[in-house]
Amino acid sequence: MKHFISIEDLTVKEVYDLLRTIKMYREDEYKLTKQVFVANLFFEPSTRTKTSFVVAERKLGIEDLEFATQTSSMKKGETLYDTAKTFEAVGANCLVIRHEDDEWSKGISKDLNIPIINAGSGKKDHPTQSLLDLYTIYQEFGYFTGLKVAIAGDIKHSRVARSNAQLLAKLGVEVYFTAADEFKETEFGYPYISMDEAAETCDVVMLLRIQHERHEAFSGSIINYLEEYGLTKKRESKMKKHAIILHPGPVNRGVEIDPELVECKRSRISKQIEYGVYTRMAILTKQLLEWEIIDESHIKKCPKPILATSKQKAN
Amino acid sequence: MKHFISIEDLTVKEVYDLLRTIKMYREDEYKLTKQVFVANLFFEPSTRTKTSFVVAERKLGIEDLEFATQTSSMKKGETLYDTAKTFEAVGANCLVIRHEDDEWSKGISKDLNIPIINAGSGKKDHPTQSLLDLYTIYQEFGYFTGLKVAIAGDIKHSRVARSNAQLLAKLGVEVYFTAADEFKETEFGYPYISMDEAAETCDVVMLLRIQHERHEAFSGSIINYLEEYGLTKKRESKMKKHAIILHPGPVNRGVEIDPELVECKRSRISKQIEYGVYTRMAILTKQLLEWEIIDESHIKKCPKPILATSKQKAN
Amino acid sequence: MKHFISIEDLTVKEVYDLLRTIKMYREDEYKLTKQVFVANLFFEPSTRTKTSFVVAERKLGIEDLEFATQTSSMKKGETLYDTAKTFEAVGANCLVIRHEDDEWSKGISKDLNIPIINAGSGKKDHPTQSLLDLYTIYQEFGYFTGLKVAIAGDIKHSRVARSNAQLLAKLGVEVYFTAADEFKETEFGYPYISMDEAAETCDVVMLLRIQHERHEAFSGSIINYLEEYGLTKKRESKMKKHAIILHPGPVNRGVEIDPELVECKRSRISKQIEYGVYTRMAILTKQLLEWEIIDESHIKKCPKPILATSKQKAN
Repeated sequence: MKHFISIEDLTVKEVYDLLRTIKMYREDEYKLTKQVFVANLFFEPSTRTKTSFVVAERKLGIEDLEFATQTSSMKKGETLYDTAKTFEAVGANCLVIRHEDDEWSKGISKDLNIPIINAGSGKKDHPTQSLLDLYTIYQEFGYFTGLKVAIAGDIKHSRVARSNAQLLAKLGVEVYFTAADEFKETEFGYPYISMDEAAETCDVVMLLRIQHERHEAFSGSIINYLEEYGLTKKRESKMKKHAIILHPGPVNRGVEIDPELVECKRSRISKQIEYGVYTRMAILTKQLLEWEIIDESHIKKCPKPILATSKQKAN
Repeated sequence: MKHFISIEDLTVKEVYDLLRTIKMYREDEYKLTKQVFVANLFFEPSTRTKTSFVVAERKLGIEDLEFATQTSSMKKGETLYDTAKTFEAVGANCLVIRHEDDEWSKGISKDLNIPIINAGSGKKDHPTQSLLDLYTIYQEFGYFTGLKVAIAGDIKHSRVARSNAQLLAKLGVEVYFTAADEFKETEFGYPYISMDEAAETCDVVMLLRIQHERHEAFSGSIINYLEEYGLTKKRESKMKKHAIILHPGPVNRGVEIDPELVECKRSRISKQIEYGVYTRMAILTKQLLEWEIIDESHIKKCPKPILATSKQKAN
Repeated sequence: MKHFISIEDLTVKEVYDLLRTIKMYREDEYKLTKQVFVANLFFEPSTRTKTSFVVAERKLGIEDLEFATQTSSMKKGETLYDTAKTFEAVGANCLVIRHEDDEWSKGISKDLNIPIINAGSGKKDHPTQSLLDLYTIYQEFGYFTGLKVAIAGDIKHSRVARSNAQLLAKLGVEVYFTAADEFKETEFGYPYISMDEAAETCDVVMLLRIQHERHEAFSGSIINYLEEYGLTKKRESKMKKHAIILHPGPVNRGVEIDPELVECKRSRISKQIEYGVYTRMAILTKQLLEWEIIDESHIKKCPKPILATSKQKAN
C-alpha cells in the first residue's frame, strides 16, 4: 500500500491501468455502494484541481469534506500532521492534499493509516495533473513512443514540468524543455530548445503558467515575454498539422500564449480540465482499492439514463 | 435557449409558468433522477440568496459546487470568463453567478454552452429576487392588476428596485417609488411619492436595504432616516387593512424600518426567504429543461413521507 | 422542547440515553429516510468540531449547510439573530452554532422554532465536547462513580473545563483541577491539586489547550510551562496502570504535554475525535426527535455491507 505522491512511484503498468480506468469512467457512470469520505485539504489557492476532485468524488458518490485554512484550527497553530490525523480520526478514508511545501508528504505519510493523494506539492510534484496531461495526449495520438513533447515556460518553478517530463520519458516520449534563462533548471536532464524549434518540430506544445506568486520582480520583463518565449500566432502557424497545445491553467492570456490561441483548434486546454475529473476518479478508486477501503464489488455501474426525446443533449 | 439574466427577458407567460412551478414545488417534493452539477459562483457576500440556491439544489437532488473567491485561482489572476469556462469544462451543467459588475453577463454569456442564472449583477439586476417577491405578492392577493406597490429606499443603488418595478409593471401593478433625494433615480420612469403616502395608499410596501457598502459618507444622516423616509410604527398604523410589508434582506433594523415591525403581522420578510427556495427550484429546472440538460421525465415526484404520530409537526 | 446549550440542562437519564445512542451509532449504520437540513454556523475557527458535525450529518444522510462569516451578509452588518432566522426561513431544521460570545444563545433561543445545538459558546460551554469526553471515559472504564478525573490547564478560559466538571460530578466522578495560578478560577468549586498529584492519583488526566488566542502576554512563561504544569514523560511514568490521557485538541505539543505523549499508549486523543462523530449523531437525532422534525420511524438501520474478501479492512 502506497500513497499517491509522485509520478516516480508509478510503474508503467500502473500508468496504463490508470489510462484504462479513466476511459472506463468517461464512458459510463459508476457509483460506490459504500459510504466513503474524502477530505480535500488545499493549503494553496486552486479552482480547477480542487473542483475537479470534488466533481470526481461526487460522481463516484463519495462524501467530500472541505477544509478552509482561514477558519480552521491552523489559526490556533495546528500543524499539517495534526490536521491530517484529525481528519483520519474523524472518519476520512482518504486525504487529498495541496501544500506549498515541496516535501510536505515526508512529514506525514508514514504515520497515516489512510491513503494520501498529492494534489500539488510546492514546485516539486503534481502527479494528478501529469496523468491527465498524459491521458489527453494518449486520447489524441493513441501512442507515446517517438512522440515529441515540448514543455515550455517556467521550468524552474513548475511542479507540472518536472512530473510530466518524468512520466512522458518513462513512456517513450522525447521530452524537450524551452524556457527563458531565468526559468531554466538544468538538473532535470532534458534538452532545451527554442520556442521556434518547439513549435515547428513537436507534436505537443505544453505551456506552463508564469507563476507570479512564486517569484517577484518579473513584471518588468512581461511585455516581451510572449514575443520571445511564448506561443504567438506566428509560431502556432508553423506547428505540425496534428500538433496540439496543452496548458494546465490558469492561463495568463497574452503572457505565455496569445489570447486568441487559448480556445483555438489545436488547444486541448478545455479537454484537459474535462479529462481531469475522470483522471481523479481513477486515482481515487485506485487508492481506495489498494488500501482495502473498498473492493471491486463496491464499484457499481449505473444504468444509462434513458432520454425521453431525441433532441436531448448528451451530457 | 437563453440565460436567466434579467427580468426583461421573460414573457408574461413565462412568469405565470414560473409562478405555477413555484407552487408545485411548495406542495410536493421532487427529485431529479439524473446527476446534475450546479456551480454557485458568488463574488459578493451573500447569506440568503446563496443558501437559498444551495437548499433549492439539494431539494432537487442537484450536486452544488461551491467556490470561494479567496482560495480560488482568481488569486492567481484568473478572469470571470476563464473561471466560468473552467466550471463548464469540469462538468457543471449550470452556473449561478453573483458579481459586482453590472454587466458581467455580457462578457461571458455568449461563449458558454451551459445556462447561467443571475444571482445579482452590481446595482442592475436581481431577477430571482424579483420573482420571489412577485410570488409573495401573488400568494397574498391572488392577482396583480390594479395592485399598488411602493418600492422604498435606495432606488438608485438597488438592483432589486429596478428588476421588481419592471416585472410588476409588466403584470399590471401600479408601481411607485419613494426615496430620499440622494437615492432617487429618475431614468426608471416610475412616479415618486412620500413614505406617508406610500403607507396610506399602497397594498404592498417593499422596503430596500440601505447599502452601506455601495456608498460612503451616509452614516451622518442615518439617525433621521427612519423618521423621514423609513417605515415607522406610526406610518405602519395607517397602512390599509390587508397591506403587507416586504424587504429583500438583510434588514438594517432601525434604519429603513422600525425594529419592532420586522416580524410584525404585516411583515412577509420571513415568507420571502422561504418562497425564495421554491422560486430558485423553479428557475433552475426551467433552465435545465430549456437547455436540454434534463427533460420532464427526469423530474420525479417523491412519495409523501408517512408520519408515525399525529402530533408530528409538518415540515 | 429545549435547545442543546449547556450540560446543565441534561438530566442524568438523558446523559445515559445519549451514551447508549452513541454506542448504537458506533455499531451500525443508520440513515434518516426524510430529507433534513442542518446549518453549521461557526463564527470561530474550528477543524475537529466542525468536521465532526459534518461527518455526523453525512453519516445520517442529513444535508449540511455551510456558512462562511467572511462571505456572508454579516459583512453587511447582519446580526446573529437575523442570520439564524434566515437559516430557519430558508429551510434549516436545526442550527449548530459556535460563537465567541459566552451568552449568544440567550439572544436567539426563545425566538427560533427549530433546535439549536451549542458547538462552543465563548469560554462558557462546550456540551458536545463534554459528552464525547464522557463517552470516552465510559468506554474505557464502564462506570463513573468513584473515578478520579483531573482537569488540567487553562481552567479560567476553558469552556471544556467548566462543562466537563459539571457533567462528571453529576455522574459521581471525583473532579480535581490543576492549573497555574493565573489560570485558576475559584468560582467553579472543585479542589485544586498539583500536576504531580494529578498524575499519581487520578484515573483520567484531561489536559486543556493553552489558548493563545484568548489571552496575550503568555509566551514569556511558555518555556517552563511544561515542566511546571504540563504532562511530562516523568509524570506520565508515575500514572496508575490503567490511567488514560485526554485532550480536546488542538494540542500545543511541548506546551501542555510532551510531544511524545500525544500518541502514547495512554492517550485517547484520537479516540476522542472518533467518538465525537457518533456523539454528535446522537445529539442531532435527540434534538430532531424532541422537536418532532423526525420520528423514530425515520431512523433506518442500513444493512451491513458485505465484504468481498477476507483480508478487507474493517472501516
